[in-house]
Amino acid sequence: MPSGIDSEVFLAFSTYATIVVLKMMLMSPMTGYFRLTRNCFANVEDTGMAKTPEDKKRMLRVDPDVERVRRCHQNDLENITPFVVIGLLYTLTGPDLSTALLHFRVFVGSRLFHTVAYVLPLRQPSRGLAWMVGMGATFSMAYRVLSTTHL
Amino acid sequence: MPSGIDSEVFLAFSTYATIVVLKMMLMSPMTGYFRLTRNCFANVEDTGMAKTPEDKKRMLRVDPDVERVRRCHQNDLENITPFVVIGLLYTLTGPDLSTALLHFRVFVGSRLFHTVAYVLPLRQPSRGLAWMVGMGATFSMAYRVLSTTHL
Amino acid sequence: MPSGIDSEVFLAFSTYATIVVLKMMLMSPMTGYFRLTRNCFANVEDTGMAKTPEDKKRMLRVDPDVERVRRCHQNDLENITPFVVIGLLYTLTGPDLSTALLHFRVFVGSRLFHTVAYVLPLRQPSRGLAWMVGMGATFSMAYRVLSTTHL
Repeated sequence: MPSGIDSEVFLAFSTYATIVVLKMMLMSPMTGYFRLTRNCFANVEDTGMAKTPEDKKRMLRVDPDVERVRRCHQNDLENITPFVVIGLLYTLTGPDLSTALLHFRVFVGSRLFHTVAYVLPLRQPSRGLAWMVGMGATFSMAYRVLSTTHL
Repeated sequence: MPSGIDSEVFLAFSTYATIVVLKMMLMSPMTGYFRLTRNCFANVEDTGMAKTPEDKKRMLRVDPDVERVRRCHQNDLENITPFVVIGLLYTLTGPDLSTALLHFRVFVGSRLFHTVAYVLPLRQPSRGLAWMVGMGATFSMAYRVLSTTHL
Repeated sequence: MPSGIDSEVFLAFSTYATIVVLKMMLMSPMTGYFRLTRNCFANVEDTGMAKTPEDKKRMLRVDPDVERVRRCHQNDLENITPFVVIGLLYTLTGPDLSTALLHFRVFVGSRLFHTVAYVLPLRQPSRGLAWMVGMGATFSMAYRVLSTTHL
């Protein structure tokens, strides 16, 4: 069944998986940016810039903008990790290049839009739809994996 | 050492990894279901159904049932991601099919039971034991990977 | 382009990925240890050792030491998952063994140091630098994946 890791589908998967994982990784510096500009931290050792003990205490709080970016990051972990696992197994079932590209592009596009919709934020149902489209692409690949491996 | 991605062990891994990742993904709609029925959201743009500003505020809270499902989802991320990574590397060390199936089935079974034990919830130590059995299966596969690759 | 899963680079990747994923998995028992010694739990069914209802309530709280370990675990999920995905794709681009080993060792070393710096904790910028070095190793591998697959 598997068509090997030299196929064009595998090259495409490598590219799209790397792009969407890099996007996920960029949520970390974005959280850092919001922590610095909102002056809001989670660890006492991160409040070295504080001048007084009261300043230190004020910097150890929960900020709504920071929490929004963190929820977006968490949603990425919950959705991009499954895509990468199921996408790799799907790639090895030897799908058509055009069908595979459609799945990879729809998923990556939906997650880029999801991030924009979450961070700005856009009105619902923008974020909800983006999440659903990404789930749909992953479910469709999972269906092919399960039907090809003769569950 | 590796026995290729055409082996029967790889087909079995594909199937079980996909099943357990799909189970993890289903925690997202389950969280959504609890958010809707408990009327409890994390983002202000998700409270569009509210009629008054007071309603909006009341909908932005932390609900114990929602948090329980979210902790279960987080535990999946912390345990299923390692299983998938170590399971793939284990598959490529060319284990016996029967030994590999034992590992995959024990892990997937323990995680299905873990979810039931967490969400209902069942009395402890149900959830704790399910978690430990899953960890054990992954550790056992990791041991084979490290001993086969001649650390 | 890919040089197969029989290469020495793949064996090295298997070893280092397994080590760093095992390290991540050990954060779970560490959280358990802190929960038990701090007598602080998240679920009501985990407070079976309590003798009175007041004891039960006191055990359901948020403890700063437990939260620190959990943040460290979360940071592992956010950084080690991308390393494993991009590291696997990087391995299949057929890099030099010595260059690949450098990437794997720098990443794994940075994450071991990150955990120490987070849990003790060490003064900043110890933890921040460890995080950045790990991100750098993953970004460098991602660059090779994208340039080899002719984006």
